[in-house]
Amino acid sequence: MIDLSQVTVIAFDADDTLWMNEPLFREAEARFCELMAPFIAAEECNTVLFEYEIKNLPIYGYGIKSFVLSLIECGMAISKNTLPNETVAKIIEIGKQMLNAPVEVLEGIEETLEILSTKYRLVMATKGDLLDQERKLFKSGLERFFHHIEIVSDKTPKHYKKLMKHLDVGPEQFLMIGNSVKSDILPVLDAGGYAVHIPFHTTWAHEVATQPIEHTNFASFDSALALTIYL
Amino acid sequence: MIDLSQVTVIAFDADDTLWMNEPLFREAEARFCELMAPFIAAEECNTVLFEYEIKNLPIYGYGIKSFVLSLIECGMAISKNTLPNETVAKIIEIGKQMLNAPVEVLEGIEETLEILSTKYRLVMATKGDLLDQERKLFKSGLERFFHHIEIVSDKTPKHYKKLMKHLDVGPEQFLMIGNSVKSDILPVLDAGGYAVHIPFHTTWAHEVATQPIEHTNFASFDSALALTIYL
Repeated sequence: MIDLSQVTVIAFDADDTLWMNEPLFREAEARFCELMAPFIAAEECNTVLFEYEIKNLPIYGYGIKSFVLSLIECGMAISKNTLPNETVAKIIEIGKQMLNAPVEVLEGIEETLEILSTKYRLVMATKGDLLDQERKLFKSGLERFFHHIEIVSDKTPKHYKKLMKHLDVGPEQFLMIGNSVKSDILPVLDAGGYAVHIPFHTTWAHEVATQPIEHTNFASFDSALALTIYL
Repeated sequence: MIDLSQVTVIAFDADDTLWMNEPLFREAEARFCELMAPFIAAEECNTVLFEYEIKNLPIYGYGIKSFVLSLIECGMAISKNTLPNETVAKIIEIGKQMLNAPVEVLEGIEETLEILSTKYRLVMATKGDLLDQERKLFKSGLERFFHHIEIVSDKTPKHYKKLMKHLDVGPEQFLMIGNSVKSDILPVLDAGGYAVHIPFHTTWAHEVATQPIEHTNFASFDSALALTIYL
């Protein structure tokens, strides 16, 4: 069993760890591919869209605005530059609806934070769009549990080391909890910290890591609440 | 004369304080209004665009991606939904060129930071898009001068108080230097800190404050370098 006895800081990923996020994107993709139905089959539409998102990731970064810009670019390519303005307007509207969507806190999270916040310094560490993540945190009502909020442009070992330094803790005192093996687990283990994976039922293809993890600093739990027994 | 003897932390705004930014937007607006020439006169085009930007600000926030999404929405409205896909593609390309533009550090800034970094803790405090601001800081070569980087979704007295708390300094130890009276000066004075205005020749209409400032904690200088004599 993973030994977490030295941990003093617990960092939580936000999207699909604290609240639901990925299903919003899946739903938006489905709506986009419906709009593209006159030009392309749904499955192929999803493939092409993924290509545009990955191509634009280095320049746009993560988040809904980046996603919408990729949808428009992709839609024009799929329609061979015959995408009606009304469809572009619908795509922009999909984005605005995503940005305005209510925040659905995942089951057991509030209870988990309530328990852990009495014993640990809690941090929220997420990537994505600054304004959007702040807005979701505010809407979630979970802000009061967190000692510090860290919104970064990407999650690499370097980012985690910087966060640990900033929080003035060594890697052996740092535990990260998240749903993305690629963003929340591997770079933290690489930086010498502890990482707990709480899988979520939906994961973006870009975040999927295929190799199983064997590491003394790693564990996987069905829910954050289940982990609290060990903390 | 403003008394800065207690100051230990100096925070610098980034866009149009450390490096050129607003002229990029002015140039992009001019290019957009050229694209709109078949539908509307340039002056009116700028007015309508500003309306769309302000309308979208609460949902999109600051930054180039927000700007591009407003350009597309505005372009479709101006053209009464007859905007050709080729024009939409050109607008997206304008945005990508802005994101990829080289960073032009303003005259005297490197020298200023060189001098001040030996005596003060320097901080960069900017609003806007996370990835874009990080990229510009990296490209500028100025990162080495800063003890801390703060990228926020907006600059209000609350944001500045939080930053002071984070840096563990009182307002009397905090000096902000920036080109925007609305974002860099007034909220800092409101939070009890010191503020120095370094005007830049181009300011976005949204950032223009019209009232003259009279405050013991405030001063205006032609350049950051001119201020170093007093520090």
